[in-house]
Formats: sequence, C-alpha cells, structure tokens
Amino acid sequence: MTARIESWAPDGIGDVQPGDDLARIVGDALVADGVADGDVVVVTSKVVSKAEGRVRVAADREAAIDEESVRVVASRTSPRGVMRIVENRLGLVMAAAGVDASNTPEGTVLLLPLDPDASARAIRAALQERFGVRLGVVISDTAGRPWREGQIDFAIGAAGVLVLRDMRGTPDTHGREITVTMTAVVDQIASATELVRGKVAARPVAVVRGLARFVTDTDGPGAAALVRSAEDDLFRTGSEEAYEEGYTAGYEAGANDAFASERDADVELDGDDAL
Amino acid sequence: MTARIESWAPDGIGDVQPGDDLARIVGDALVADGVADGDVVVVTSKVVSKAEGRVRVAADREAAIDEESVRVVASRTSPRGVMRIVENRLGLVMAAAGVDASNTPEGTVLLLPLDPDASARAIRAALQERFGVRLGVVISDTAGRPWREGQIDFAIGAAGVLVLRDMRGTPDTHGREITVTMTAVVDQIASATELVRGKVAARPVAVVRGLARFVTDTDGPGAAALVRSAEDDLFRTGSEEAYEEGYTAGYEAGANDAFASERDADVELDGDDAL
Repeated sequence: MTARIESWAPDGIGDVQPGDDLARIVGDALVADGVADGDVVVVTSKVVSKAEGRVRVAADREAAIDEESVRVVASRTSPRGVMRIVENRLGLVMAAAGVDASNTPEGTVLLLPLDPDASARAIRAALQERFGVRLGVVISDTAGRPWREGQIDFAIGAAGVLVLRDMRGTPDTHGREITVTMTAVVDQIASATELVRGKVAARPVAVVRGLARFVTDTDGPGAAALVRSAEDDLFRTGSEEAYEEGYTAGYEAGANDAFASERDADVELDGDDAL
Repeated sequence: MTARIESWAPDGIGDVQPGDDLARIVGDALVADGVADGDVVVVTSKVVSKAEGRVRVAADREAAIDEESVRVVASRTSPRGVMRIVENRLGLVMAAAGVDASNTPEGTVLLLPLDPDASARAIRAALQERFGVRLGVVISDTAGRPWREGQIDFAIGAAGVLVLRDMRGTPDTHGREITVTMTAVVDQIASATELVRGKVAARPVAVVRGLARFVTDTDGPGAAALVRSAEDDLFRTGSEEAYEEGYTAGYEAGANDAFASERDADVELDGDDAL
C-alpha cells in the first residue's frame, strides 16, 4: 500500500483587515476544494496577526521588537544595522523577535499573534462547527536556523493535530529501539505547505489531506510544546556572546587569583625577611 | 487557481544491501504509481549509505564518529553517556556526526554517504535515463535543531532541484522588497516527505508531484550550498563551550594584567623609597 498526502492552497483570499472574522475567511476559501474529516488547515501567522490587529507603525519597529523580546540571544552588526536574534514572549528564538515588515500595509510592521495556540484553537472550533468534521489547525511562520542557509516554515500555533510524534520505545524493522525519538510533526506540516503557498502570492491558507492519523479529538498542548527551554538548550546564547560572558568572568577570576597569589608571595617574602 | 502538490511513498522496498544498484531499486518502486516530468524523488540517506557499503561494526561507533567529525560543536554528558554534536566532513552539524544505529543490521552502524550530492546526481541520471523525463532527486536525513523539541528531515544531497529559492529583490504584494530572502526549498521537500514515509515502515523513497517549477535542467550546486560556514554562523560553538573558551582566555588576560599592575605598583613603591 502506498502512503499518500495531498496539499493545496486556495487562491483569492483578499487582504485581511484588523477585526476581520478570520475563521470565516479561511472557511470560505476552503469551500471550493471541499473539506474532509482529518484535514489539516495551515494558516500563516501573518493573516492571524492582521486579523487580530497586531499592527504597529513602522517607526516603532525597534520598540516593537523590544516589546516582544525576553532576551537577546545573539546579535550581528552589518552595514544595514544591528540584527538581533532574540527569544520572544512565546519562547521562540527568531530574528527581530518575529516582527515582520514584508507584505504588511505601507508604513506598518506586524507582531506575532499574542497567543498563536489560542488562535489555532479558535479557528479550529469555528471550522469544525461550520463543516461538521474533525480538523487540525496549524499557524505557520518563517525563520532562519543555525548552520544552514535559507529559511523554512515552522509551526508557532497548533490545535487538534499531533505536535510531537513520540517514537521512544518503538521497535525498528530489526526489532531494536529507534534512535530518532521525537518527530516535530507540525513543523514538517508547516514546511510542506510553504512549498504550495509560496511567499509572494496571496495564499495564506493551505490544506493537507492524508494525515488524519495525526488529527486528535482534543486540541492538545499546542506548538508551545515544541519550545525547548533555554536551560535545556546547548545553544541558548550565541557563540560570541557566550565567549564574551566567559571572558568577563574569567578576567575577574584571573585578576583576583593573581592579586591573591601576589599577596601570598609578599607574606612569604615578609616571613623570609623576618628570619 | 489552486496550487497543489501530492506526495506518496511506495511500500515494499526490501532491505538494501551493500553493492545493490539503488537507482534500479528506486526506479522499480516508482513504476506502480507512475513517473511524470518534474517529479522530485526523495531517498533517505539510510538506504544510500547501505547501498554504498557505509557500514561499520557497532563496536567501532565512537571511532566512526571520530572519522566523520571535523570538530566538536557542543557536547552533553548524561547518564547514557556523552552526546557529541559535531560538524562532520560534509559541514553538517549533527549529533554523533550523523552516524546512525537504528534500522541498521544487528551489530552495525551506518555512516552518511561519502558524497550525498554525487549520490543524488547518480540516481537522477539513472532514473532520467530509465523513464525519459526530467526529475529532481533529494537525499534526506533526520536531525534535531537548537531551540526546538523534536527532529525534522532535511536535505543532505540534491540534484536537479532548486536548493535555495532566492527572493531578494522580489516585490511583495505591496510592491516592496520582501524580507524573507532565501527559502531552503529542498529541506522543506525532505520534511514534507517524512510525513508520508514515516520512520518505522520500510518506505525509504517518496515522490513529490507538483513542484516541476523547482526542477532544473542541470544538476545544480547540490545540498552542499545549504551549509553555512562556521565563520558565518552565530552559533558555531555551543554556549557552554564558547563560555569556557572565553573564560580561559579572560583568566589569562586578567592574571597577566594583575601581575603587570602589581609590578607597576612595586616600581612606584621603589621610586617612593628612593626619595
């Protein structure tokens, strides 16, 4: 038996405005191609932010980044200015805290949704009510990553779809436990639909059919479950920043130890003198 | 117009053995569902490694990791042992250098293919010859990432398919340049097909149809183009490791400066004494 999925992105979703009923707009876009039990609906964070009015004037971009940031993880100065990679309120590590200046109304920037998992749950509830089937909903965003060029889409919100597939204890085809322990299912769903949606065309919604086994009755823990806490992360701070932090601490310790050993030496010399 | 892709993973590919003609095995698996111009064929690195005989006895696992490693990026000690995240020969930053112990014959481990882009080119050439259509080929693997729980699939080899979609200079729907500049197309293709292939079932091959616009006449630069050099990376070294490095350098500088200032003070004291 061949395993199979299909994904499509309806065209013709107009500009979304603050206060718009996004679940209705998304639902209208789905009608033409039909909705089936077990479909996963992916909505870009951009239209969620627009509908939720998460808009700031562009002049306040730096203030918006500050507002969204919990801590600076790394930064780089280039001729274009300082690029800050920060951990934001949602625990996501993203350039400019995820504050977005492209495909936004002139003179504005967009902040990420306040609670993307809640947004996903609300859209899910409305779509399930409307279509009378069980659906998963994912809110997607785009980010760069360490070590690799290029950006990929990932999930910042999820409801009713398996977030992490836990493979621990699953035997492999040779009967041993497999070393891949957890698969970030919803991140891969977000990436898959980016291939269909693209970045430029006005296609903020995509459907994946064929993943009904990942669609759950309850809303589940949401994409928040994919956030690894800074304490548990081997890359919690940029290499330069961690080096600087270590250098400062080391410098102080080295200087203190040196003064202490000088003092000890002086005491010893005084002792010798006394003989 | 609705944009659409489809992906499937044929079943029934048996165990691959060293020396097997992998392109023939993959081609045989594709026949039942048909092959069309512009299809992208994704093959897991595991079967490429098996066919290429990249097998070691499990007792030599640590030696195999050493053999594959260029440098240690970060490490963590747990009750299960030391986990090393390294930059491997291919420039990929992966736990255990990508050396794999699951779904391998008992008592063996698998190293990554020697040159996955070359493997992709060879499979592409053979499949295009056999089916008489233009195809893209991706070699996929699985890895964890900083800041997020769970692993996702990504591309370690590619031929005939766009690796990075360069969006620089592309106007957004409001006529301004978009800030997302490069999309890692083949990584997203690898992630999309993991949803179809799964980890446990013997489905090492998947096809994506609907991305013909990303399939190129030439083989292109391969997935090697996705590797960011360590010098250009803000996370080239783990936070702990960078801190330790900084601490050591800072300690030495602090001690030297302290001794120097003590000497200066002594010289001053000697001067006072001479008065």
